[in-house]
Amino acid sequence: MSQQAVNGVSHRGRVLTLDSMNPNVKRVEYAVRGPIVQRAVQIEKELKEGAKKPFTEVIKANIGDAHAMGQKPITFFRQVLALCSYPALLEDSKFPEDAKQRARRILEACGGHSIGAYSASQGIECIRQDVARYIEKRDGGIPSNPDNIYLSTGASDAIVTILKLLVCGEGRDRTGVMISIPQYPLYSAALADLGAVQINYYLDEDNCWSLNITELRRALSAAREHCNPRVLCIINPGNPTGQVQSRQCIEDVIRFAKEEHLFLMADEVYQDNVYAEGCQFHSFKKVLFEMGPEYSNTVEMASFHSTSKCYMGECGFRGGYMEVINLDPEVKAQLIKLVSVRLCPPVPGQALLDLVVNPPQPDEPSYATFMKERTAVLSALAEKARLTEQIFNTVPGITCNPVQGAMYTFPRITLPQKAIDKAKELGLVPDMFYCMRLLDEEGICLVPGSGFGQREGTYHFRSVWLNSHKDFKGHQILIFY
Amino acid sequence: MSQQAVNGVSHRGRVLTLDSMNPNVKRVEYAVRGPIVQRAVQIEKELKEGAKKPFTEVIKANIGDAHAMGQKPITFFRQVLALCSYPALLEDSKFPEDAKQRARRILEACGGHSIGAYSASQGIECIRQDVARYIEKRDGGIPSNPDNIYLSTGASDAIVTILKLLVCGEGRDRTGVMISIPQYPLYSAALADLGAVQINYYLDEDNCWSLNITELRRALSAAREHCNPRVLCIINPGNPTGQVQSRQCIEDVIRFAKEEHLFLMADEVYQDNVYAEGCQFHSFKKVLFEMGPEYSNTVEMASFHSTSKCYMGECGFRGGYMEVINLDPEVKAQLIKLVSVRLCPPVPGQALLDLVVNPPQPDEPSYATFMKERTAVLSALAEKARLTEQIFNTVPGITCNPVQGAMYTFPRITLPQKAIDKAKELGLVPDMFYCMRLLDEEGICLVPGSGFGQREGTYHFRSVWLNSHKDFKGHQILIFY
Repeated sequence: MSQQAVNGVSHRGRVLTLDSMNPNVKRVEYAVRGPIVQRAVQIEKELKEGAKKPFTEVIKANIGDAHAMGQKPITFFRQVLALCSYPALLEDSKFPEDAKQRARRILEACGGHSIGAYSASQGIECIRQDVARYIEKRDGGIPSNPDNIYLSTGASDAIVTILKLLVCGEGRDRTGVMISIPQYPLYSAALADLGAVQINYYLDEDNCWSLNITELRRALSAAREHCNPRVLCIINPGNPTGQVQSRQCIEDVIRFAKEEHLFLMADEVYQDNVYAEGCQFHSFKKVLFEMGPEYSNTVEMASFHSTSKCYMGECGFRGGYMEVINLDPEVKAQLIKLVSVRLCPPVPGQALLDLVVNPPQPDEPSYATFMKERTAVLSALAEKARLTEQIFNTVPGITCNPVQGAMYTFPRITLPQKAIDKAKELGLVPDMFYCMRLLDEEGICLVPGSGFGQREGTYHFRSVWLNSHKDFKGHQILIFY
Repeated sequence: MSQQAVNGVSHRGRVLTLDSMNPNVKRVEYAVRGPIVQRAVQIEKELKEGAKKPFTEVIKANIGDAHAMGQKPITFFRQVLALCSYPALLEDSKFPEDAKQRARRILEACGGHSIGAYSASQGIECIRQDVARYIEKRDGGIPSNPDNIYLSTGASDAIVTILKLLVCGEGRDRTGVMISIPQYPLYSAALADLGAVQINYYLDEDNCWSLNITELRRALSAAREHCNPRVLCIINPGNPTGQVQSRQCIEDVIRFAKEEHLFLMADEVYQDNVYAEGCQFHSFKKVLFEMGPEYSNTVEMASFHSTSKCYMGECGFRGGYMEVINLDPEVKAQLIKLVSVRLCPPVPGQALLDLVVNPPQPDEPSYATFMKERTAVLSALAEKARLTEQIFNTVPGITCNPVQGAMYTFPRITLPQKAIDKAKELGLVPDMFYCMRLLDEEGICLVPGSGFGQREGTYHFRSVWLNSHKDFKGHQILIFY
């Protein structure tokens, strides 16, 4: 090769640049781990290196990461995982019999009796059976078929996979996907990545972030002008808004989906996180089947769950599953083919999921400790939910809806005009400006409402539930202006 | 809602059907877990239920799944994973000190000292540092920057992520990606999914599946007529062909990539699996840097590794990493944003990867056992490599290249015309017909060559290395016709 050619190439610059990369990826945004979190990590480093700040540690209220915030893992789960990782411990008398029995059952279902073997791409069969039994029990006996269960790498993986199957068409025929605003930004990110059309429907802040069918109709009818709406996504209990949907609301949503020929995606990863008096979790599957065969035989649905939230909070294991209802058998074959390309979900996460859906029973030695630990975590979360709402509602300029479920609040902030002007001057969205100030001056890391979506002219932030009043000093920022 | 509307909807049929789904997903194929494997699982079920067959068990030579084939995990790795899962064991005197020290270090790097917390999306920082040090040691001191290391969910995840960044454009501007034929079908599957143009370059079967620059030039120049070739993918050691590239060949490839302005993707997951006399693994990174700054400052590259192969074979943990070289800083920011949407790779897999890159040292208590186990696994693999080549070359109608590395051979089968005619009659690709017969009659599960790609009119299969002569009785199928 001549020197000329070499120079020719080097003058051409890089193969992959911001200008020459996939434009869909450029459109992806994910605020939960966005610039504010990168700044928080930077500040933590500065503190470690001895920098003087008005605070000594960063309170990370940006992400629902239970263990990172001090929640302890459930002993039984971790005992079984240790046994599965190092089966020599099966001979150790310190481990309870029920933990050993679970570990043996999981290992027997693994290739070569090792969690280091690939599993079936859909997930280990006996774990899918356990998931199906768990769903049946949760839903008062409505049958669940293990063939409809797909284990996944956290719920995010399954959500993206189903969206990928659904998105097609060009121009006005492009698939439109209805998502709530505010939303969990995995949805907008996945839609940007897939080049799908995002259809916003707004939750009703004045009515505790409830979902309103009239608003769904408005959003759908507007979207039909420019795309092909085929999917309706629901998050219940809500993220970032923490509301819990009533049975009536779920029925209305299902009726709407059937009437409007929409595929339903029910993100139910917070199903154990319900705290408010009078609130209860109703699964979409159960309500669908209680509405009779006219619905349960026709409405296509996928429901998602994970090991990352609820009382276990095991985010790092990336365990999860989805159940599909009324999925076309030919599409199911395509789904199995698609998931097989990534070989299988992580087997330790599958094992953990098995324990979540098949925990210690009353006649087993680990039951008492398990229940004590589970109850303690859920009570602490409920207490924090109450406390968080109370803290925010005493701060001038902040109003916070009653907290019903999940792990978040999404309070509204009334920013003084001077603050809005200052933000504009700095080229920042006003609530990003607020959150950045809060981080820099008080060491509190929240995610600006703009990362989840909000009605024009309103400002919010998402906060994971706090441990104490001391955790929130943000009113100074509002008062300053 | 009126009954009419309900009927109207039900007449419309399903929202999601084969006709209305994402056409890119339909084009995805993944033979390693394709119809032949589904049939194998079916036969295994029938055997369990007492069905009489000419064999008593299915030999699964379709996938490199070491533990499933009886390989034992490395004790030290599993001890540390048990300690990380259930830290109460840190008080147990049965565990060696070096295992405890590794576990403590990993736990200290986790949020809340729990592997159940999310990690940074790029992976735990101290593990990325360990990976960088490992690469430096492997490559004789050539520096590696932890900021260029991205931990992943197996290597597949990282490969798909980099391809996703690279694919853009429409029509003749659509990104083209050069892949070897035969190839590992993750590549063709990912390209179909992304709607990229697959550019085939053929490995030279007559020269031990070596890579020939003239063939690369031919393929590139033909592709430039209809797309925008931007990426060159290399698998070394080869999958499914088991060849190991010479240093000279790697230099030629790097020169070609620079000259032709291509982004290099080096799939090096079999880097410890080299057996043949005179063969040695050379990393693309090392060769690139040894070629001088003219290359090492300009050629853009990503190299992939995983915990699933080599001597550990821990497929189920889905651990892996990639190192990027000369990646545009703005693209890096986009990459971090993109991986953050999926939150983080599974933390147990990250922990395992840390042990692979930072194994017991000579002065540590676990060193002797570790080395003994590692050597035993690699010797057994080398022995099987020899045996497999020998077995296949004694079978009439089968010719097999010398086995140099990885875990596979890709022998050529000369099918009698009658067999080819019969296959066509049944609507099957001839090598699929052969493999199906072999499965049904002998209980041996191989993957047909057509699943990896092969020159028109030639037929092959991929086989994972076999345990003994008894494992292969496929010549009867050839003789039968």
